[in-house]
Amino acid sequence: MSLVIDAQLAPFRTLIEESLSDACRFADGCPVRLADAIRYAVLAPGKRLRPALVMMAAEACGGAAGDARPAAVAVEMIHAYSLIHDDLPAMDDDDLRRGRPTTHIQFGEATAILAGDALQAEAFSHLARNVSDPGTAVRLIGELAAAAGACGLVGGQEDDLAAEKIRIADFRSPLSARKHLESIHRRKTGALFVACVRMGAISAHAGLDEVEALGRFAELFGLAFQITDDVLDFTATDEQLGKRTQKDAGRGKLTFPHLMAAENSVAKEDSSSLSSGDVDFQAGIAFARSHATSLIQDAHDSLKLFGASADRLHIMADYILERTS
Amino acid sequence: MSLVIDAQLAPFRTLIEESLSDACRFADGCPVRLADAIRYAVLAPGKRLRPALVMMAAEACGGAAGDARPAAVAVEMIHAYSLIHDDLPAMDDDDLRRGRPTTHIQFGEATAILAGDALQAEAFSHLARNVSDPGTAVRLIGELAAAAGACGLVGGQEDDLAAEKIRIADFRSPLSARKHLESIHRRKTGALFVACVRMGAISAHAGLDEVEALGRFAELFGLAFQITDDVLDFTATDEQLGKRTQKDAGRGKLTFPHLMAAENSVAKEDSSSLSSGDVDFQAGIAFARSHATSLIQDAHDSLKLFGASADRLHIMADYILERTS
Repeated sequence: MSLVIDAQLAPFRTLIEESLSDACRFADGCPVRLADAIRYAVLAPGKRLRPALVMMAAEACGGAAGDARPAAVAVEMIHAYSLIHDDLPAMDDDDLRRGRPTTHIQFGEATAILAGDALQAEAFSHLARNVSDPGTAVRLIGELAAAAGACGLVGGQEDDLAAEKIRIADFRSPLSARKHLESIHRRKTGALFVACVRMGAISAHAGLDEVEALGRFAELFGLAFQITDDVLDFTATDEQLGKRTQKDAGRGKLTFPHLMAAENSVAKEDSSSLSSGDVDFQAGIAFARSHATSLIQDAHDSLKLFGASADRLHIMADYILERTS
Repeated sequence: MSLVIDAQLAPFRTLIEESLSDACRFADGCPVRLADAIRYAVLAPGKRLRPALVMMAAEACGGAAGDARPAAVAVEMIHAYSLIHDDLPAMDDDDLRRGRPTTHIQFGEATAILAGDALQAEAFSHLARNVSDPGTAVRLIGELAAAAGACGLVGGQEDDLAAEKIRIADFRSPLSARKHLESIHRRKTGALFVACVRMGAISAHAGLDEVEALGRFAELFGLAFQITDDVLDFTATDEQLGKRTQKDAGRGKLTFPHLMAAENSVAKEDSSSLSSGDVDFQAGIAFARSHATSLIQDAHDSLKLFGASADRLHIMADYILERTS
């Protein structure tokens, strides 16, 4: 993480991690092993990008970061649960996350599944207990539940798993393959980013225009984030990311660099490369980076409404293009 | 199911199944396979005991069954998700549920995990979208989330899995073992039953006294339900229950008949049977049935406040003692 971004995130991170730690203290009824697994997953070192976005969105709308604390905690709990379940042997089968053994490696598969299940319930419980105005609470819960549900996060993961069996050659064109990949990521990664900023705005009692503009920002931000994620899977080391890299490439999975290399080959009328899968990954990475840059430019534009109060969100958007982890 | 109970449940079941079917129609963003798995699990033939309890509790408090429909749907979604995850290979590893292959057998493990995850989110989404008064919605969500969370349903399942490795001889006495088993079931089964009746009461805008009395009823009802479940695991056939029986006995797991036989042996100063595990199961089953009868008597008593408006709940309580599936 660059020093500039780290300085931006640090004050939010402190606030968020204190709140998360409080939220993950359970009453006597909770088995110790389950509580340990939940705390292991939630309190693992992380950038806390999503909860920071919640708070920054609240600030952009004239609220205080603290107003958005319940929403920030709930979002991070949902994110943590989704990582636990995504890493399971039946899903992405990952053994390393945030530089440490994944939850099922550390606590066993049953406890990992249950820790994820509990975290999802606790996220909604946290909002119900900690947002004082019921109307605001219901809106926040509705936003988060929709983002986490069958048409959001979970639906995206289902399609992402299916995508491991799809090859570019299965599509009419690389462009249609890219549209499919974008639709997966709009749900798997994008839906929660959109929920973050909308929930931040709702916590600050923002108007509909502001909620919608921030949602548009987060869609673009989320897609650029996923593209750089795919690029980092090719270019970064395990140590930099704290998780296994080159997994997608190794499995021949649809990724943005791969698709963009194929699109470029087709544009050059070099159609043989589409069916053979023999594409130039270096060119693909360059195209992917350039596409991310263009998305981030649009993301900046979507914040015009907010003026200087969205400064932190602008910095976060630029960070996507620079990130190395 | 007896004809009397079937007649009691039938009108609720129709209402509930229509509502569940509506609630499990997802927008275009939801992958077809995921939606199919969700509908397979939720719309499987079932008694719909929990949502019926929600509606009967609303009626006991002077409300209409229809007032409690969102709560009833949300409760059944949580129940369905918990069954999907409990049946997974890493958990209870069951291949049969409600007379059909379990969700992971039918759709694969990854989709089963995701269907459960989506259902949990959809339960809260349903309440947020369908309860018109925000104050009531937040209370309902808070009740359900607490029951489903780390100190409720999920915590109970974690301890229940751990209980497979515990033997009666690990406890100071059979009575302390029974207290432990009761504490597991208070969370694994009881918490959701309690949430059912409390949510029914809240949907009918009941007073605190009514909410608390119904909660007490459901605690007793839930424990009696679990005891008869353990008895049925010994006495019923796979066909009667629509799931594998004699699994607990086969694994030497702590169950009520087992514990009660051991308590009786100790009472007769026949302490050798405690350490050897050589207990009389037929006697244990008789003791377990007698204990369930006493709990149900207390459950009836806890409904005094409601007079004739709780008639259906009284009938449900008696059903627990007669059930064969």
